[in-house]
Amino acid sequence: MNQPRLATKDDMPRVLELINELAVFEKEPDAVEVTLEMLESDGFGEHPKFTCFVVEVDNKVEGMALVYMRYSTWKGEALHLEDLIVSQSQRGKNIGTMLLDEVVKYGKSLGVKRISWEVLDWNEPAIKFYENKGAKVMRDWDVVQLNEKEIDNYLKEI
Amino acid sequence: MNQPRLATKDDMPRVLELINELAVFEKEPDAVEVTLEMLESDGFGEHPKFTCFVVEVDNKVEGMALVYMRYSTWKGEALHLEDLIVSQSQRGKNIGTMLLDEVVKYGKSLGVKRISWEVLDWNEPAIKFYENKGAKVMRDWDVVQLNEKEIDNYLKEI
Repeated sequence: MNQPRLATKDDMPRVLELINELAVFEKEPDAVEVTLEMLESDGFGEHPKFTCFVVEVDNKVEGMALVYMRYSTWKGEALHLEDLIVSQSQRGKNIGTMLLDEVVKYGKSLGVKRISWEVLDWNEPAIKFYENKGAKVMRDWDVVQLNEKEIDNYLKEI
Repeated sequence: MNQPRLATKDDMPRVLELINELAVFEKEPDAVEVTLEMLESDGFGEHPKFTCFVVEVDNKVEGMALVYMRYSTWKGEALHLEDLIVSQSQRGKNIGTMLLDEVVKYGKSLGVKRISWEVLDWNEPAIKFYENKGAKVMRDWDVVQLNEKEIDNYLKEI
């Protein structure tokens, strides 16, 4: 197993496979509208919209963490971990921890005052893992979303 | 009352007052580490880190909404509403709704497939308001954060 490294454009086909693998596991295979072309142009253009780390096992990418900057009105620039995925067949080998460590190191190198992510509130093993790492799980904050269709519906009503 | 408009650098002193007003109301006045200089340079440089809308009442900014782009591994670029603040003295005049409407229109104009924000799970009036607008309140997702000190502690342990 290799240490985490920055992803290159050439890793994006495999990264998209991991994204799809997780969506299938979560029984939402149709929810993935991201395409290889989007990942390649959004992540590797002049102004990248995200940064991606990957871990290889036997020369194959088996885990990835995707991050980008947010902006807190209290703390200024903050790093957000959008997704951390380890291939089903490679679980239990510490790859997730290696990737989270890498993300925290990256945040430190950027000098951010906050690193954030989201967790399912029934995922007690994950919550316990994060709390052991010293993170605050803010159970009283919920995520609100409008999807594409809901955006259109919203606009029709105003 | 004026319609929402894009904030300029000159609005930032008043925007920072609103940020502080809310932090005092939430009994966390010391949590605000953002400075006027940060807001001015981060929001109005060559690559702005956020976009801000404001509403004026009698030529004074009394409400603001601060947004930026995120990146969904399912949907690609997504718009996030970080903060929507209306001055205490100006509540109940529909300013919050005007700002949320403006944010959704802005998201539509950008062609994003998702607009997101966060809400306190005990804030039932807000949740009801968002749900009436067609938004999904994802009660099973929690926010996780590492602050500056927790980042250092995390790194000490690895």
